[in-house]
Amino acid sequence: MPVRHLQRDVFVDPGIAGEVHGPEAAAADRGEDFVLADKLSAEKHPGASIPNSEFGIQNSEFAECSLSFRIPNSEFRIPNCPYNPPSVHRFFAPALDAGDETVVLPRHEAEHLRRVLRIGVGDTVSVFDGRGHEFLARVASIVRRDVRLQVLARVEPPPEPAVDLTLVQAVLKGDKMDDVVRDAVMLGVAAIQPIVTKRSEATVATLLKSARVDRWRRVALASVKQSRRAVLPEVRMPLTLDTFLDEPPASLRLMLVEPAAGADVEPLSIFRAGAIPTDGAVLIGPEGGWTEQEWNAAKSAGVRLVTLGHRTLRADAVPIAAIAVLQFLWGDL
Amino acid sequence: MPVRHLQRDVFVDPGIAGEVHGPEAAAADRGEDFVLADKLSAEKHPGASIPNSEFGIQNSEFAECSLSFRIPNSEFRIPNCPYNPPSVHRFFAPALDAGDETVVLPRHEAEHLRRVLRIGVGDTVSVFDGRGHEFLARVASIVRRDVRLQVLARVEPPPEPAVDLTLVQAVLKGDKMDDVVRDAVMLGVAAIQPIVTKRSEATVATLLKSARVDRWRRVALASVKQSRRAVLPEVRMPLTLDTFLDEPPASLRLMLVEPAAGADVEPLSIFRAGAIPTDGAVLIGPEGGWTEQEWNAAKSAGVRLVTLGHRTLRADAVPIAAIAVLQFLWGDL
Repeated sequence: MPVRHLQRDVFVDPGIAGEVHGPEAAAADRGEDFVLADKLSAEKHPGASIPNSEFGIQNSEFAECSLSFRIPNSEFRIPNCPYNPPSVHRFFAPALDAGDETVVLPRHEAEHLRRVLRIGVGDTVSVFDGRGHEFLARVASIVRRDVRLQVLARVEPPPEPAVDLTLVQAVLKGDKMDDVVRDAVMLGVAAIQPIVTKRSEATVATLLKSARVDRWRRVALASVKQSRRAVLPEVRMPLTLDTFLDEPPASLRLMLVEPAAGADVEPLSIFRAGAIPTDGAVLIGPEGGWTEQEWNAAKSAGVRLVTLGHRTLRADAVPIAAIAVLQFLWGDL
Repeated sequence: MPVRHLQRDVFVDPGIAGEVHGPEAAAADRGEDFVLADKLSAEKHPGASIPNSEFGIQNSEFAECSLSFRIPNSEFRIPNCPYNPPSVHRFFAPALDAGDETVVLPRHEAEHLRRVLRIGVGDTVSVFDGRGHEFLARVASIVRRDVRLQVLARVEPPPEPAVDLTLVQAVLKGDKMDDVVRDAVMLGVAAIQPIVTKRSEATVATLLKSARVDRWRRVALASVKQSRRAVLPEVRMPLTLDTFLDEPPASLRLMLVEPAAGADVEPLSIFRAGAIPTDGAVLIGPEGGWTEQEWNAAKSAGVRLVTLGHRTLRADAVPIAAIAVLQFLWGDL
């Protein structure tokens, strides 16, 4: 099943630039039966239908953030923890509004809580609205498929980048686009705009008919949960390049091109001295690159052509390198 | 067969930040039976045992670099081409010395030329020594397994980064390490030092017994060919972290850590104002991260602890982001 495969990809291969693994792995070193974090899927732990209530989280596990809570009786305190706790399962509840005391999980999230993670009434979880708000919550009731959470306390998710960056990515072949969505979301993009170009294999029509956009959205959600962001970046409906260029532009739009794409190509370093834009979009081509006509159309529409230099990278490695450098440029890294 | 699988991975998924696809794809647009570049493996083109002599390369194909040559009679001229021609198969001949008029290809390269690519006597290829030198050459003779090339003219490979950067990478699980080697080589690292850490699954002994180092070296070579570098980065024998820390250090050594790794952790941006080092090494941990003891050992050995911020990335995406940002910092991007 593709989704399961996807989720496993996302959950089992967490990687670690961030703060997530430290305390857990340290606990594992001490031989404690510690934690089944969001990023470790049930597939990874065949026998791991560990109910949350068996977690024995001690204050010392969170020395970094002074957060502690005991699950069985749901006592907790969060004195100085800067970010959301790394070891509680996270659920997405887009209907959650400020001031809500309880929230009902969407069907898919409820299924995941009940059937995959086997979390029960009284267990502590985390719930976020996809717009930057996150709360510790307790499972208040499970009635058939309805899972209701009681909101306990606000937690602060990791800061979002200061510059809203949209990745405008030409659709790649096979499941490479899944990887790009996953990594771009983990790196902190604000939105992903799939586009179809001359050398794309897909057309907008075939993309709309297929389930690929839905699939990318599921990948984005899994990636958000994994990376502890509380903002769910929008994966927009695919457009042709021309249609995209007609849309209201971001304050800075960059197209990554080959250095040979003419005299107007600038190195990324030219933006070192520049002002930080309020928002940005970076256009990245398909495996076969842009056509000259596409460079010119973009240039005419006010997009600046930039290059990562004379490197030949994998198509799905390009967005990682480009987003990382732009975030560094804009002080977000 | 793992190697074939590997090579296909590398060759079929070329990606494109660089200059490689432009002219070829443009030719394909015009319906010309144009080129079977290094990056397109025979697997990708089942019927594609196109002998080089069938290439109809016209001057116009290389408008960007004013290079032209005709294969059948091997007339060629390279007036202004800044870099090696993008459409000639490249072969690695470490024995090639300055001034050599001919060179015999190593066994594996000869097999690839004869049997996979079906290149014949009189065809034009490119040959590089792995130390930064590259030449156009003509196949002078094929006698059983011996392929001898006649060196024709020097070509200039794309520039190497100014700062020699060694990726000191904790061995990752499965074939993720292959991906890291491939991407790091494409991004331009000078060397890769695999290390074994507390949370690595492999030990130095099992790595040495297995064929993994050889495999990584083949990946590095395939990646060099693909990315048109003429320098083959060394993939060193695995070491433990402690042994690595005892080695003579690069002028700047950085360890990527979680932001929570203590008061001495610096953001990468602190190096914006710093001098560009003569060489550098970046240490990147395994899926499970470093232990506190490892941070401390590194710090005591003079390694600076840096962070990419509160991001949770896939383990194999971290090196791409880190290398790209360091190259940008050092003016190599």
